[in-house]
Amino acid sequence: MTSIAPIDAKAFRAALGAFATGVTIITTRAPDGTPVGLTANSFNSVSLDPPLILWSLSRNSKSLAAFQSAKEWAVHVLASHQHDLSNRFARAGEDKFQGLDILDAQTSPPLLKDCAARFLCKSVTQHEGGDHIIFIGEVVEFVRTDCQPLIFHSGQYALATPFQTLLSSPRTTELTQDFGEDFLGYLLGRAHFQFHQSIISRATALGLSDEQWFVVATLVAKNNATAEEIDEAYAHHGSSRNTAKLIAELVESEWLVPQIEPDGRTTYRFSDSGREKTLKLLTEVRSLEADIAQRIGVDSLKILKSSLHRYINATNPGIPDLWKRAT
Amino acid sequence: MTSIAPIDAKAFRAALGAFATGVTIITTRAPDGTPVGLTANSFNSVSLDPPLILWSLSRNSKSLAAFQSAKEWAVHVLASHQHDLSNRFARAGEDKFQGLDILDAQTSPPLLKDCAARFLCKSVTQHEGGDHIIFIGEVVEFVRTDCQPLIFHSGQYALATPFQTLLSSPRTTELTQDFGEDFLGYLLGRAHFQFHQSIISRATALGLSDEQWFVVATLVAKNNATAEEIDEAYAHHGSSRNTAKLIAELVESEWLVPQIEPDGRTTYRFSDSGREKTLKLLTEVRSLEADIAQRIGVDSLKILKSSLHRYINATNPGIPDLWKRAT
Repeated sequence: MTSIAPIDAKAFRAALGAFATGVTIITTRAPDGTPVGLTANSFNSVSLDPPLILWSLSRNSKSLAAFQSAKEWAVHVLASHQHDLSNRFARAGEDKFQGLDILDAQTSPPLLKDCAARFLCKSVTQHEGGDHIIFIGEVVEFVRTDCQPLIFHSGQYALATPFQTLLSSPRTTELTQDFGEDFLGYLLGRAHFQFHQSIISRATALGLSDEQWFVVATLVAKNNATAEEIDEAYAHHGSSRNTAKLIAELVESEWLVPQIEPDGRTTYRFSDSGREKTLKLLTEVRSLEADIAQRIGVDSLKILKSSLHRYINATNPGIPDLWKRAT
Repeated sequence: MTSIAPIDAKAFRAALGAFATGVTIITTRAPDGTPVGLTANSFNSVSLDPPLILWSLSRNSKSLAAFQSAKEWAVHVLASHQHDLSNRFARAGEDKFQGLDILDAQTSPPLLKDCAARFLCKSVTQHEGGDHIIFIGEVVEFVRTDCQPLIFHSGQYALATPFQTLLSSPRTTELTQDFGEDFLGYLLGRAHFQFHQSIISRATALGLSDEQWFVVATLVAKNNATAEEIDEAYAHHGSSRNTAKLIAELVESEWLVPQIEPDGRTTYRFSDSGREKTLKLLTEVRSLEADIAQRIGVDSLKILKSSLHRYINATNPGIPDLWKRAT
């Protein structure tokens, strides 16, 4: 094993990327007081007693001299919303601290706010590590918040879903082991129904029935449409339909107005008052997502939506796009 | 900053946990050839040229002597399905390698299969690191696979969802910025519909209509039920209902049989042939999830289901449980 084939740097870097990490920003001050900082994912814990952590910095880094001479530096473990901050400190050249809200105590390393965790360290040892220098620091102060972590894996950012959440699926029934509450069809149906209920409770307050809402929603997406087009969109939600009757009701209540197009087709669009009521309703419905984000967390909402996109794209049997404009 | 207050070990450990990591198993052989291995998340990259990586091991570890004298060791970056393997190698005492499929070349460290990445290293340096020893190795050989990574964060395992997936939401329409294809209500409705369609295509092959399927599905969960109970479950899916007619049709086609209970209620249950056809259908429906797992990946399916559970629990307006047995 003494003769070593030269390692392909690109492939090696990719293989290292298979190990997921958090993302940190490490800061210090140059001897003249200038704040210095960079993004690193080479952080890790070393020792509990004494409390030691380490990270590595390229010998080519412009910040190397500052860190080599620094008595203290601070490690900020980034939260999931701080990917822009991570990008900012990963780039060289600009004033990375400009406009940032830092806890500025001149003598100390610049401390950033809102991170998942922060470790203020006394620099204790530096080791040679090939083209990098390994910095070992003793933690003298630390804080932790409840933020979700930013994750870096295979060259891109990611969010984490804990196994605890994944394993918390509820009981199933006997006969139907695979068709209990963890059955995907059930989950999709139930989640859809719960969301739908929140909309309907708002729609009925404006005098709109469950089924009429769907006609209105279709017109929001399409702006104007024939009865056939509305019916088609309706069909894609799998419900039994009564589109002609629903449209007639909405015309009767002056929510919609019919219009004869130059080509002879009859299309339907919102009346002025119908548009006003629709916008009011949409504003309320829009607040639903904000409410959900608050209840389950912004990250969880993102992950839910992203998972649904993925599912929809992978299982699309060729359904036309509800929200695609006819024109 | 020279007088340092003693660090609370538990709080410090928790703060370190804010930094997410992958999980590795590191293996070597004791001088007598016995395989040695342990789980570590203190792994990180150090240098590209030469290719160096590092990890830390507690001075109290029973495996310390073996690693200190080893000329080579191997780092296995675990894939998301390998949490059991991680747990096995995190525990002391038992024969960790028993029954494992290892690439056994006697002289080399035992190499485990199916990992996200594996690095075979020549041990080059050991540094003191408080209550741990830092091992630096030069990578002489490595492999990488496409597996999703196992993640460790705040003391528990997690799965990753890449931002790339999160950011790939499609275009939106003008008037309805927040109501395009990234609107949660749309995503839930569409995903539900697509799943439902797959079921229906299988149900109709057995002579079951869209609406009849729901009655059958309700009875699968409840075993037997009155028309009222079926109707109630139906209502929770928000569709317009025709339950009495649907039940009559299913009795007519001998899928269901009515039964007068001792208390005078009429309940409905599957006939023998109805049960047989239902089981056939359920077998096909059951394969849907397996098919989806294959299309989007097992991890993505887990994350989707977990996200839906979370959403459902957080927004439940007090809907009774469809799948809860009446008894």
